Amino acid sequence: MQNYDLKDMIYEGKAKKIFKSQNSDEVEIYYKDDATAFNNLKKSSLKNKGEINATITACIYKYLEKNGINTHFIKVLEPRLHLCKKVKIIPLEVIVRNIIAGSFAKRLNIKEGTKPKNVIFEICYKNDELGDPLINDSHALALGLATKEDLTQIYSMASKINNLLKEFFLKCDIDLIDFKLEFGKDKDSNLILADEISPDSCRLWDKETHKKLDKDRFREDLGGVVKAYEEVLLRIRKAGLLCL
Amino acid sequence: MQNYDLKDMIYEGKAKKIFKSQNSDEVEIYYKDDATAFNNLKKSSLKNKGEINATITACIYKYLEKNGINTHFIKVLEPRLHLCKKVKIIPLEVIVRNIIAGSFAKRLNIKEGTKPKNVIFEICYKNDELGDPLINDSHALALGLATKEDLTQIYSMASKINNLLKEFFLKCDIDLIDFKLEFGKDKDSNLILADEISPDSCRLWDKETHKKLDKDRFREDLGGVVKAYEEVLLRIRKAGLLCL
Repeated sequence: MQNYDLKDMIYEGKAKKIFKSQNSDEVEIYYKDDATAFNNLKKSSLKNKGEINATITACIYKYLEKNGINTHFIKVLEPRLHLCKKVKIIPLEVIVRNIIAGSFAKRLNIKEGTKPKNVIFEICYKNDELGDPLINDSHALALGLATKEDLTQIYSMASKINNLLKEFFLKCDIDLIDFKLEFGKDKDSNLILADEISPDSCRLWDKETHKKLDKDRFREDLGGVVKAYEEVLLRIRKAGLLCL
Repeated sequence: MQNYDLKDMIYEGKAKKIFKSQNSDEVEIYYKDDATAFNNLKKSSLKNKGEINATITACIYKYLEKNGINTHFIKVLEPRLHLCKKVKIIPLEVIVRNIIAGSFAKRLNIKEGTKPKNVIFEICYKNDELGDPLINDSHALALGLATKEDLTQIYSMASKINNLLKEFFLKCDIDLIDFKLEFGKDKDSNLILADEISPDSCRLWDKETHKKLDKDRFREDLGGVVKAYEEVLLRIRKAGLLCL
């Protein structure tokens, strides 16, 4: 394992560190064990979380690439370290909801677990100081966060990714409740998928028991957080989807 | 003047009462002096406000009808009382922003008075208990609040109304900063404009001094609320727009 302290860090986020790579068009993304929730009000360190999430993310990114989704992922360098294309992140959190849950359920007083009439797509302005507020397309354009073409492509990709991920997790007997995506532009200004896809960024419920296998275990103090993440990884492996 | 206590009330809102009319397809809308803000946390009664707002609304509705906008307005029965088509209100507050102001400025930390790159359209779920939360089209469809066709027509009408109202107020040396619209379906399921358009539902700033001539005077304790509303009406009259 490399000595990460000697590496040239570009940015440290809540759950990841981004280091310079030899190629200036690429970065190395390191998955930390740190867990945060409620806009950083709740913090903890969960042993092994980083490695599990890095493994799940790598697996899902390979699966998406195979199915025609352009992403920033290049390859796994070490268990917690990915080589990725350097992107200029679009400051939007793109959320896809198949089932109503979490803060959305509370905000609109809808019972968690309700299936909406249609898949819900929403965007939040990625801004910690403002608490990542929900915005709409008109706001995103007015604030110069994305162009109309970007938004059209983002929703189209998010919809495809949702269908692919639902299928992926169903093979693991897991319902994909909702998830968050981020997109960026590569050096040629292509819009590509970036960031992680893991139990930190998805709500994942056991298909039969509806047991939560995601970060809500941390948010709601349900215990067994890392154990649940490990179970997701184990199910991916059992389903023959661990394409590493 | 009629004795309103003897009338058959269908509904009492924060600033209006709705009474049955002789024709079951029509209602009589009475404008109260009551003022509320911040989801009913701030309340007061402002003498003559009801009559001024009823007069401004009637004038604007006639102007919009003349310019091809279908509305619920039929005629003025008494200074505070309008005869209107009965509609089934679509539970959306449709907000149009030409200039950033109010809670939107605070929420996204943008200086009040900033002109956005494009006109901003947003919808809120009209629900007092939930505090009229901001939603997007995908949410409105999922909650069954409106159909896709309704939303397309709503945005198209809101855009036309914005252009018409900007022109209307500019003739009064007033900048139309933002405003809220409501829509409903009449007996034949036509989507038509409903509710009031007045200094209670619009932000109106003097073109030169940027003096606020709207409900923000009440929200922000600036004083002279009714005087400002009277000034709007006076300017409408002076501009020859009082088409009663």
